[in-house]
Amino acid sequence: MKKNQLKNHIYGIFPTSSLIESRPELIRGAKIINNIESPPLLEIKKTLERLDINIDLVSRSELDNLSSTKNHQGILLYTKNLNQTSIADLEELAIRKSRNFKALILDGIQDPRNLGACIRTADAAGVDAVIITKNRSADLTPSAIKSAAGATESIMVVRVTNLANTLRWLKDLGIQVVGTDMSASKTIFEYSFSAPIAIVLGSEGKGIRRLTRDLCDDLVSIPMYGKVSSLNVSVATGIVLYRINQA
Amino acid sequence: MKKNQLKNHIYGIFPTSSLIESRPELIRGAKIINNIESPPLLEIKKTLERLDINIDLVSRSELDNLSSTKNHQGILLYTKNLNQTSIADLEELAIRKSRNFKALILDGIQDPRNLGACIRTADAAGVDAVIITKNRSADLTPSAIKSAAGATESIMVVRVTNLANTLRWLKDLGIQVVGTDMSASKTIFEYSFSAPIAIVLGSEGKGIRRLTRDLCDDLVSIPMYGKVSSLNVSVATGIVLYRINQA
Repeated sequence: MKKNQLKNHIYGIFPTSSLIESRPELIRGAKIINNIESPPLLEIKKTLERLDINIDLVSRSELDNLSSTKNHQGILLYTKNLNQTSIADLEELAIRKSRNFKALILDGIQDPRNLGACIRTADAAGVDAVIITKNRSADLTPSAIKSAAGATESIMVVRVTNLANTLRWLKDLGIQVVGTDMSASKTIFEYSFSAPIAIVLGSEGKGIRRLTRDLCDDLVSIPMYGKVSSLNVSVATGIVLYRINQA
Repeated sequence: MKKNQLKNHIYGIFPTSSLIESRPELIRGAKIINNIESPPLLEIKKTLERLDINIDLVSRSELDNLSSTKNHQGILLYTKNLNQTSIADLEELAIRKSRNFKALILDGIQDPRNLGACIRTADAAGVDAVIITKNRSADLTPSAIKSAAGATESIMVVRVTNLANTLRWLKDLGIQVVGTDMSASKTIFEYSFSAPIAIVLGSEGKGIRRLTRDLCDDLVSIPMYGKVSSLNVSVATGIVLYRINQA
């Protein structure tokens, strides 16, 4: 994948104000139109100033060029590459969320649409962060970002090189790591979930890897009541995460 | 869509024995190799004879031709077109399943991959039948069948012309019709589900139609805990159907 396929700016009143509210630490700088007319845009400018984020005032035509669109509504934010969110950001979030922290770990999801759908589902279920592996996984391609329906901006997505080390580190932080595995004896409805928690799902074909499975504190299965032997990974994600919310 | 894109035969020991076990009424006839060597194939032949299904014994090369493959394992079944399953079949199933009957109704799902994923999820959740609309819906195209991962053979899929009439008919049969709608005041976790039940889901963009909604006995919503405003329809299907199984 080419580096420039990654999204590192956003524009428009709603997307930018969402990001400012949810993940201001991702913002590297702002371009705002020099003759602000809209009250919401004025609000955004004030908030950015309060957050001490660097603001350039520019002409409408310059904004048109920078955003490659006329739909920028007078604002563009440069963001950290979403793929570059680091373990340090994750640790800060886990500590801040403390006993409410919930993460989704995806072990080797190779279809970008499935990856995006999992991130979207994780956001809907109120998960704080999604952890994916750098190798053997789809990247946050435009197709994945589209399937995520905006969730790649509202939820933290962290790519890690060594998933085993990440799992050990999460456990050291006191976060319970629970893997889903068809062969697990307890189903998600028989298991007592409690946050802080990280749930691991693997690819549809292969499930979670042996080493990943061995590092989980517990394994749970999704009961299958019909003839098919597995679920689409984003569907499985939804069933497990909504189960945890009700546990 | 061309008629011949619809699948009207299956082959191989596992697919055919699955269909014989779950939906024998869909089988129109069988072609079996004339020198049977495998014990499971002999079992299948006996079962077909007991079911009074017409069997032709043919040569290996003839089976190769009929199935367009060499992987038929000595058996091919001609099936009723899955799209031609009728309301009469559905009624028979609903009466047979009685108080355990569960159906999924999809109101206007236009993406074949989503349709297939919903059918797969319905099967995994132990639903008996999926009802789709003839107009405004994707058909059981090869792409939908592939996404269904075999579920189009194990679960009854019925296409109806007039969904409103179908809903009235289900209610007359004593089946509760519950629609999912973002605006419903009760969430699926606050609602007491009980079978026999039919759950209605609409398309992601539009939800269920006004008339469909008005005909539902009750409406329920899936709570959204994050920033995204909706879920992929197959994910929503999984969350609702697994919730019903635990209710």
